[in-house]
Amino acid sequence: MAKEVTSRADNYSQWYNDLVVKADLAEQSAVRGCMVIKPYGYAIWEKMQGILDGMFKRTGVQNAYFPLFIPKSFFSREAEHVAGFAKECAVVTHHRLMNDPDGNGVVVDPDAKLEEELVVRPTSETIIWSVYKNWVTSWRDLPILCNQWCNVVRWEMRTRPFLRTAEFLWQEGHTAHATAEEAQAKAVEMVHVYADFARNVMALPVIIGHKSPNERFAGALDTLTIEAMMQDGKALQAGTSHFLGQNFAKSFDVQYTDKEGQQQYVWATSWGVSTRLMGALIMAHGDDNGLVLPPALAPIQVVMVPIYRAEEERSAVIAKFEAVKAALEAKGVSVKIDDRDTLRPGFKFAEWELKGVPVRLAMGARDLAAGTVEVARRDDLSKETMPLEGIEEHIPALLDSIQKGIYDKAAAFRDSRVEKCDSWEEFKEKIQQGRFLLCHWDGTAETEQKIKDETKATIRCIPVDSYVCEEEGVDIYSGKPSKGRVVFAISY
Amino acid sequence: MAKEVTSRADNYSQWYNDLVVKADLAEQSAVRGCMVIKPYGYAIWEKMQGILDGMFKRTGVQNAYFPLFIPKSFFSREAEHVAGFAKECAVVTHHRLMNDPDGNGVVVDPDAKLEEELVVRPTSETIIWSVYKNWVTSWRDLPILCNQWCNVVRWEMRTRPFLRTAEFLWQEGHTAHATAEEAQAKAVEMVHVYADFARNVMALPVIIGHKSPNERFAGALDTLTIEAMMQDGKALQAGTSHFLGQNFAKSFDVQYTDKEGQQQYVWATSWGVSTRLMGALIMAHGDDNGLVLPPALAPIQVVMVPIYRAEEERSAVIAKFEAVKAALEAKGVSVKIDDRDTLRPGFKFAEWELKGVPVRLAMGARDLAAGTVEVARRDDLSKETMPLEGIEEHIPALLDSIQKGIYDKAAAFRDSRVEKCDSWEEFKEKIQQGRFLLCHWDGTAETEQKIKDETKATIRCIPVDSYVCEEEGVDIYSGKPSKGRVVFAISY
Repeated sequence: MAKEVTSRADNYSQWYNDLVVKADLAEQSAVRGCMVIKPYGYAIWEKMQGILDGMFKRTGVQNAYFPLFIPKSFFSREAEHVAGFAKECAVVTHHRLMNDPDGNGVVVDPDAKLEEELVVRPTSETIIWSVYKNWVTSWRDLPILCNQWCNVVRWEMRTRPFLRTAEFLWQEGHTAHATAEEAQAKAVEMVHVYADFARNVMALPVIIGHKSPNERFAGALDTLTIEAMMQDGKALQAGTSHFLGQNFAKSFDVQYTDKEGQQQYVWATSWGVSTRLMGALIMAHGDDNGLVLPPALAPIQVVMVPIYRAEEERSAVIAKFEAVKAALEAKGVSVKIDDRDTLRPGFKFAEWELKGVPVRLAMGARDLAAGTVEVARRDDLSKETMPLEGIEEHIPALLDSIQKGIYDKAAAFRDSRVEKCDSWEEFKEKIQQGRFLLCHWDGTAETEQKIKDETKATIRCIPVDSYVCEEEGVDIYSGKPSKGRVVFAISY
Repeated sequence: MAKEVTSRADNYSQWYNDLVVKADLAEQSAVRGCMVIKPYGYAIWEKMQGILDGMFKRTGVQNAYFPLFIPKSFFSREAEHVAGFAKECAVVTHHRLMNDPDGNGVVVDPDAKLEEELVVRPTSETIIWSVYKNWVTSWRDLPILCNQWCNVVRWEMRTRPFLRTAEFLWQEGHTAHATAEEAQAKAVEMVHVYADFARNVMALPVIIGHKSPNERFAGALDTLTIEAMMQDGKALQAGTSHFLGQNFAKSFDVQYTDKEGQQQYVWATSWGVSTRLMGALIMAHGDDNGLVLPPALAPIQVVMVPIYRAEEERSAVIAKFEAVKAALEAKGVSVKIDDRDTLRPGFKFAEWELKGVPVRLAMGARDLAAGTVEVARRDDLSKETMPLEGIEEHIPALLDSIQKGIYDKAAAFRDSRVEKCDSWEEFKEKIQQGRFLLCHWDGTAETEQKIKDETKATIRCIPVDSYVCEEEGVDIYSGKPSKGRVVFAISY
């Protein structure tokens, strides 16, 4: 195999980095912390975008576009928000370059200093609420349900491709409502959209829950999250949905006249997922041979590799593949015939395994004579020789079965590593082994912080739809009373 | 009518601005020169994107994503390129804000100065060619056919919504080839994709041609353009495709080993269209009642307005509309029933006219009894009462006819204002009246500049597929020999 991948057992972190680069998903650029998303990686992201966008629109959300730049003064209107983002933002201070008078190439023109610096958006609540102020007068103008697909910048010190990059792509939904109840319901609705997408499209079993106050988005009254387990047992926050109360409406003075003629501040939500989902996809399903893509997100669902010696064998096999390809495409399956003439079949097999293509068909002269084809599944690496007849019915069913198989495998893995824990000694040991531990918590930020300081573990969420455990108990660390268990884990 | 629009005759420029705002397409933001694209405007842009993206992919192009930021030093590697963009770019110099020690809110942290300033991309040739260097070793790695949909920033001093904004959305294709011929052919292919899109989707008759050297993209050996005429007779450059020679390959040392084992520099193209197309769409087709959208780009193709007095009339009409809507949607037509109860039909009519919806259906109790419906066309404002039966066949055909009608009208208008001109006195007069003048040109930048200085007119293109006029003559200004006519106009 041309592009060898570090095994997960040897070095999980290096395995991840290898997959990103060797499966042609992304690479580092010359700009610190900014990545290039390569065509194969971007094709997966485009599929994610397309499916999510349709899901959003079916809930009544519309897309719009708001400016990249945020005036510095906006940034500081919401106190918690600025505290959360000010330390890691790209600041535009000038609008012109010039030739260095001393001949040292191009320099920033000191005469082109901006009156007010502009921050490259790390998230858009402030600029969007400054706009919503113009859009809202009466209760008839509500709700506003907008989303934007865009790039954002957070000047992270330690970056990893997809998981944490200085610039990343995402969507951010921002809604405005007349009542707190309606806004809260929207935040809940959207986290369920994310969970539905994660489970049914990404084949990612996720736990939905509330963040503890410590882990909330800067400026939110409540943050809902979906948390996924990676193969090292660490947690990855895959999407969040925030109930923002009236914080931004008050900061930007967004009020409406209600049906009784009274002025009221508007209620807000925001919610987002990013190219981080690509990291989750890779880490949740990949194996030591490379990516394992759920069929719903695979840019190529079926790859066909001809096996031949002579040219006439080649053309006969490819002609047969062309016919199968047309039949499969008519059923909505995306197919590629790998007819490259300079590479051996074994090399091609390894390359498509590395790229996670769900199904591989191989056919040679003997198959052609016998009317058979070799069908290989990427997820369990099984192979089967079967009749070519009826293959166009078999493949779509096989893809469904692979989609389900990948989910079931991830769910079984997770379930085997989620456990209740009531002993602090046990906690310290197990959390390092990669477990989601369901523990009693006394509800204080202080205890949460102490546990984090000692073990790096954080409260991933207070679960609401799976692993819910509302029972009396005592905090695993402080021994104080608790009303239910929360999910602790070490996270990405 | 609630939202009155300035007439074109009174003030064409104000008419345009009115349409942008009052049809809910876009608005100014708090950031100088940056606009907010509102949901209705963005829905049109999304349709443009979707159709263009499909056209690109059918030519073998793949999408990817490259960083927003470009190191300042990259920017200066290609001499002409830096000259073209350095004067109008946003420069990131710091990566952190802090609380002002003097208590004046938030300030830039002087300790967080970047070692090397970053330029917010005005276009991505430099960063992309720094990446292509890693992708290219041998002739087998070529061609590279990448496109990205993204935002770019050019610090324009005078901005107008969609036409010229500091930040705008666009796509930029960047291809790398083994030979000059192949790159040139790609540049030609892509300008024809743009022309096809402009003509058949935007209903915009465009002239394809080469730019004169003066008007070329900074760093290009040849720039192909599509030029459209607006209703004031001015030209709008709607898309460009550049043959970049080996300039960027040499600046970033991108070489490949050819089949003979020799090292060769790679040949490049780039090509782009932007949200400027929105401006072209508005200005080419709109009238004094508002937008006129070609059906191929209308987010809503058919709007249905019920006419009623009593509630039972309302529900009966809406029930009938629902049935028609379902039948039309099954044929791929996008339909909205305007069932708002607080607005009069006349108000709704005006609003949907303003928003350019191609077809309006109105139905009242009398229509219901008679089995008829009133069908109004947006393009020519004609109305017709016709049988409801068979309406689901009639509407798709009507939409096709409107699409063609809008194109034909724009083409007839343009043809009436394109003329040959051989007299300098006549040129000066007619160019101010809004004409495309086909004139002889001696081929020198000097003459071109003098004509521009005296009249503001520029060479829009040396046409290649329509209005081609290769005949001997004398330059309209200098009197020197010329080998053919070029298109002069005043442009946006």
